[in-house]
Amino acid sequence: MWPGLRLFRSSYSSLAARGLVYEKHGEPAQVLQLKNVDVAHPADYEVQVKMLAAPINPSDINMVQGTYAFLPPLPAVGGNEGVGVVVDVGRHVTSVRRGDWVVPVEAGLGTWRTEAVFSEASLMRVPSDIPLVGAATVSVNPCTAYRLLSDYETLRPGDSVIQNASNSGVGQAVIQIAASLGITTINIVRDREELPSLVRRLQDLGADHVITEDQLRKPEMKDLFKKCPRPRLAFNCVGGKNTTEMLRHLDYGGSMVTYGGMAKQPVTIPVSALIFKNVKLCGFWITQWKKERAHTDREEITKMIRDLCDLIRRGRLVPPPSTQRPLEDFSRALQDSQTPFLSRKQILIM
Amino acid sequence: MWPGLRLFRSSYSSLAARGLVYEKHGEPAQVLQLKNVDVAHPADYEVQVKMLAAPINPSDINMVQGTYAFLPPLPAVGGNEGVGVVVDVGRHVTSVRRGDWVVPVEAGLGTWRTEAVFSEASLMRVPSDIPLVGAATVSVNPCTAYRLLSDYETLRPGDSVIQNASNSGVGQAVIQIAASLGITTINIVRDREELPSLVRRLQDLGADHVITEDQLRKPEMKDLFKKCPRPRLAFNCVGGKNTTEMLRHLDYGGSMVTYGGMAKQPVTIPVSALIFKNVKLCGFWITQWKKERAHTDREEITKMIRDLCDLIRRGRLVPPPSTQRPLEDFSRALQDSQTPFLSRKQILIM
Repeated sequence: MWPGLRLFRSSYSSLAARGLVYEKHGEPAQVLQLKNVDVAHPADYEVQVKMLAAPINPSDINMVQGTYAFLPPLPAVGGNEGVGVVVDVGRHVTSVRRGDWVVPVEAGLGTWRTEAVFSEASLMRVPSDIPLVGAATVSVNPCTAYRLLSDYETLRPGDSVIQNASNSGVGQAVIQIAASLGITTINIVRDREELPSLVRRLQDLGADHVITEDQLRKPEMKDLFKKCPRPRLAFNCVGGKNTTEMLRHLDYGGSMVTYGGMAKQPVTIPVSALIFKNVKLCGFWITQWKKERAHTDREEITKMIRDLCDLIRRGRLVPPPSTQRPLEDFSRALQDSQTPFLSRKQILIM
Repeated sequence: MWPGLRLFRSSYSSLAARGLVYEKHGEPAQVLQLKNVDVAHPADYEVQVKMLAAPINPSDINMVQGTYAFLPPLPAVGGNEGVGVVVDVGRHVTSVRRGDWVVPVEAGLGTWRTEAVFSEASLMRVPSDIPLVGAATVSVNPCTAYRLLSDYETLRPGDSVIQNASNSGVGQAVIQIAASLGITTINIVRDREELPSLVRRLQDLGADHVITEDQLRKPEMKDLFKKCPRPRLAFNCVGGKNTTEMLRHLDYGGSMVTYGGMAKQPVTIPVSALIFKNVKLCGFWITQWKKERAHTDREEITKMIRDLCDLIRRGRLVPPPSTQRPLEDFSRALQDSQTPFLSRKQILIM
């Protein structure tokens, strides 16, 4: 029996497994190729996974371009997030079994492929009774939002937080997780034509206040703080003037956490805000956060994923609007993912 | 006997006690007047103090001008730091006795006067076997330096810190306290004609490396880090470009603490330093630090003052060069204290 089984597996895998591979850094459209990739039989502590769905995130693009702060060795399979189903396990594997859904514990796994064998330690089980796209996109943006709300200030129901880029993946997750905790969100968005519909959409997610960058600069902002307390936390994904304006509204002793720099401008802070308002500034990078804990504090990652999946199951955390395309259509998906203002997440379905 | 004693005290006090009083905010030369001030007999929990010496600090000037972030009610006696000797105590006073030297626990006491009655809680005993000027100037700059080195990163011998404005009162105290702890200091100073003598003077205090703002920008800075580890802490009293340059040399995960803004320019941080180098920024204000602890955590203040006075006694912490003038010469002392680049601390002797 065994030799036949092995043969079947081997031929099945070599025939069927394909992945978006890049051998050098460059523009994704130029360097990514859909290729056959080897799938070995899982060793003792390995797991064979059939990938189901994987998003294209901006950091995935930067990684292919070679401009990201973390780069896997080449050649590499693109993609860092996604969900797969376990199809086989090595004989010492205990944490997952066939049929389980799994997500990567940390970045660098290469999720844009149909099938792969990964180490058991690199995977984490997620419930399979939640929507596929929710599971495929739980590992980056919702995790960032969860940590932003958990790790910097002790927030209680009724406290408030302020953020910019509120319509981003992280921004929408912040709104929903905060709402589930009874924390008020003040959400800054760029002015745009379809502002009323954006405001309505964010409010539907649980946003308490949605203001434009223009309104942020107005003296009327003080009226807002008659209705809700000054924020103890600010989340910055922009940089430049907007961030300095946001900082002005922070409560005494509050913190601003920077997790992105969309404006490609530095963060500028008046000295008086640091000395006399006692504000604190730091940065957050989910890739590093997970890397530091993947082998030493896995329980903290497990708890976070469990909490987030619970919210997803209860419909309290829905992913941003997405377009799902088969892996074969990757060129179009990549192109759309890099088109400004399209603001639909591209999801590859394997 | 008592009435006579009271009479003596009363007349002694009202005759002899004088103070530099301001009834409105404005330029010190215009609004400060040397006036008789009442000194009541000390009540149960009060202490009568004959002031011995008090410095003129920049923040004292800003307080008189009305531009400081903390302003005592008017009319007020100027000065926030100094040392006095206890001449009488109320009957419930236990922490000090006649002949003890005392310093203010926090800002706002009004130290530019010959004599005063203060609450026991507002005073802290210091040893009287240390130099007068050391005791008179222990409460602001050395306390700031002590907290900067203690409260933000766990430093071990061999670790390094970097600071700008290294020739300031705080800067010199940082150099000396760090040296006593075996911590390497990298000290940035502005280029100037008498640079070699300044470098020598700071090295005599214990400075390991003294570099100019110009050198800070040069690629040769990397050679420095072959000799000493990257700093885990940066102390900023300047702002502007110099601060951004200093931040570049901080170790991964290090902190920059801002305690002043001499350049009157904000602090600018690249987003990548926050996200990928995980640097943290905050501010420190000794006035607020003491205010928060004066009544709840006095032991922490006591320990700090004791440690600092130990260093002063052992000659490991010497105050910056100073000019001592009698209180009557306050006009000239005020003028000199506001003359740029004079860099001698003005001390009023009562």
